[in-house]
Amino acid sequence: MMKYAARMKSMEKSAAIIRNLFGAMNDPEMISFGGGAPAKESLPVDIVREIAMDVLRRDTRGVEALAYGSVMGVSDLREVVVTHLLAPKGVAASAENIMILSGGLEAMNLMCQVFIEPGDVILVESPTFVHSVEIFDMFQARCIAVDMDDDGMIPEDLEAKILKHNPKMVYVIPTFQNPTGRTLSLERRKRIARLGSRYEVVILEDDPYRDIRYSGKDLPPIKAFDESEHTVLANSFSKIFSPGSRLGYILASSEIITRLFDAKSATNSHTPILPQILCAEFFKRGYYPAHHKALCDIHRERRDAMIESIDRYFPPGTKRTFPDGGLFTWVELPGGINTTELLKEATSNPEVKVAYVAGEGFFTEGNGMGSNAMRMSFSAVPPEKIRDGVERLGKLIQSKLQ
Amino acid sequence: MMKYAARMKSMEKSAAIIRNLFGAMNDPEMISFGGGAPAKESLPVDIVREIAMDVLRRDTRGVEALAYGSVMGVSDLREVVVTHLLAPKGVAASAENIMILSGGLEAMNLMCQVFIEPGDVILVESPTFVHSVEIFDMFQARCIAVDMDDDGMIPEDLEAKILKHNPKMVYVIPTFQNPTGRTLSLERRKRIARLGSRYEVVILEDDPYRDIRYSGKDLPPIKAFDESEHTVLANSFSKIFSPGSRLGYILASSEIITRLFDAKSATNSHTPILPQILCAEFFKRGYYPAHHKALCDIHRERRDAMIESIDRYFPPGTKRTFPDGGLFTWVELPGGINTTELLKEATSNPEVKVAYVAGEGFFTEGNGMGSNAMRMSFSAVPPEKIRDGVERLGKLIQSKLQ
Repeated sequence: MMKYAARMKSMEKSAAIIRNLFGAMNDPEMISFGGGAPAKESLPVDIVREIAMDVLRRDTRGVEALAYGSVMGVSDLREVVVTHLLAPKGVAASAENIMILSGGLEAMNLMCQVFIEPGDVILVESPTFVHSVEIFDMFQARCIAVDMDDDGMIPEDLEAKILKHNPKMVYVIPTFQNPTGRTLSLERRKRIARLGSRYEVVILEDDPYRDIRYSGKDLPPIKAFDESEHTVLANSFSKIFSPGSRLGYILASSEIITRLFDAKSATNSHTPILPQILCAEFFKRGYYPAHHKALCDIHRERRDAMIESIDRYFPPGTKRTFPDGGLFTWVELPGGINTTELLKEATSNPEVKVAYVAGEGFFTEGNGMGSNAMRMSFSAVPPEKIRDGVERLGKLIQSKLQ
Repeated sequence: MMKYAARMKSMEKSAAIIRNLFGAMNDPEMISFGGGAPAKESLPVDIVREIAMDVLRRDTRGVEALAYGSVMGVSDLREVVVTHLLAPKGVAASAENIMILSGGLEAMNLMCQVFIEPGDVILVESPTFVHSVEIFDMFQARCIAVDMDDDGMIPEDLEAKILKHNPKMVYVIPTFQNPTGRTLSLERRKRIARLGSRYEVVILEDDPYRDIRYSGKDLPPIKAFDESEHTVLANSFSKIFSPGSRLGYILASSEIITRLFDAKSATNSHTPILPQILCAEFFKRGYYPAHHKALCDIHRERRDAMIESIDRYFPPGTKRTFPDGGLFTWVELPGGINTTELLKEATSNPEVKVAYVAGEGFFTEGNGMGSNAMRMSFSAVPPEKIRDGVERLGKLIQSKLQ
């Protein structure tokens, strides 16, 4: 009998959800509203090929692409983050405070390495992103849920819970939140930044969807209102460039970055170089604006198809959010339907064959919260199939109410 | 004041060594025998470019390369590991038991996530690889050193220390060990595998140098003699393909792989896809045998240049290993010279400007062990510069003895 570390036990439940999620992505017959992948049609294959042809030469960046690099990441990609991604959002940053990561999620892992002892409290939204919870569970943190409404995390409840639980960290996904698609209001962004400063608690702002907005007005990140360097901003290139490149970044104070450097070095030395170069050149050569427009056009059409189809095919009494961007809408069903049970039938019944993610897994508080809810992702499925899948799922739901 | 996790404190010493290592790599005026990088001249830039041109198309593998992939890694790269890398070494494995990692070091991180609680004992070689020790320190393991001689880790001492310390894991680098360049004998490989089975302790075999052998007879990995699945084999593509691609793999029992899957998912979801495809195609298209020969020719010449130069320019009484492969020789100086002190002068004196890694950092037992030793890497420096650098360093050492 092998003796595993206790953290393997504490992550059992969330890890099982993640295993199922990855599993469901691989059935070609399924219409899957489950994953969180951007449209394959929007991946910049031809542009990346063109860049690769230029950079993979001995007289350009070929040797750099294949040799060891720096723990912090490739310099010009860190500059791209500063000038192309942060400055336009009102965040003034120095490249010295940016570390390139192997995907956005690695930020949560490394922040836990730096800050979290077993038993430490992390305040999270209710509901929140289950994959981040898997990470928090691996570090044996105690996740405590903060109430949210259509304007995101509620600052009054956050303040009360900071006072009550003395958390190490507050984890918040402010824009087109996973799983709800909701966006934190401007006023609350300011207040949450101030609460971090006042109570000296780290606000970990995870903002991977912010740049794929299809409607409504852009909002600055929480980090833009941080006056004491208690807010740490994590972001990802998965939605705006390519998820398979596994590129993300983190912006933090020099003091925190020094620790993140050590944690990164002791995780995998550094992020692969070729994807960093390809991504940096993608921005530096000016491909992003047109790509971004095409990306938003594709996803807006899919969002609209899903919202219209839910309104048409789901039963009266259904509630859903209207996301101004991102990948998800959050649906709550009437009539006491249990979405975990429903999912088994939805995926196995040959007349349905539709996947989504059941709501329960996104609530760290348990207690049956979200048992009537589902996260529906519209990004990876073309509009016609969205209509078809939502209709099939709607019929199954209607049949349960009769 | 931020409150960091206790592991940040426990990794302070090893992390400082790693930061210095990365720092020294960036001074172009320095002749650096410090890093562990393969020769830049041997990086397969042109081959990778040719493969990238083929695979980065919508009608080939372009979409796969940029989309989310599986936690376990790209299938055909896992098959490459089984057929091209393990079968020829006498290790029968199934692709289901192979997980692709973001560089070989990630294996140590994930194995710690799965097995190590603070205070758990890991038995390591004396001396051992300081970057792995940084990882073990981050997980607050207690590293206890096992004696080694020219044939590697000594099984009698290993058995005694298993009995005394009840370790969770034994960490061993059997081939062209880092930092000594020594190779574990065949007989000891068998005995260490058997000790893992008998005492039910995990043998973590880290074997990244095994495929770059320049002389002597190839030996099977410890894993080839494992009859109870207590040996876990970690390896890297850094030396045989490209370090900047950050690709490695781990072979473990199905039970352990299930846990590694969860730990990987909660670290960075999966390894970037494009580097995996490029590497898989590199082997599948048959480029490896000729590349491997060129790689060994380049490094053999550098090894020989370094060994000859040390014998010529270093003072009488110097001891050094003769590595049959890999990147390092291990040198012990006579006359009570302290190599940590010497390094400051060697790197700052404009007439020397030579870097190496001081020996002390490789000994987890402290007590001034290795204070007269140095790890000298010959791989990244052309032969002429090796002779020049060793001569300059030799003169400095001689001057200390007068």
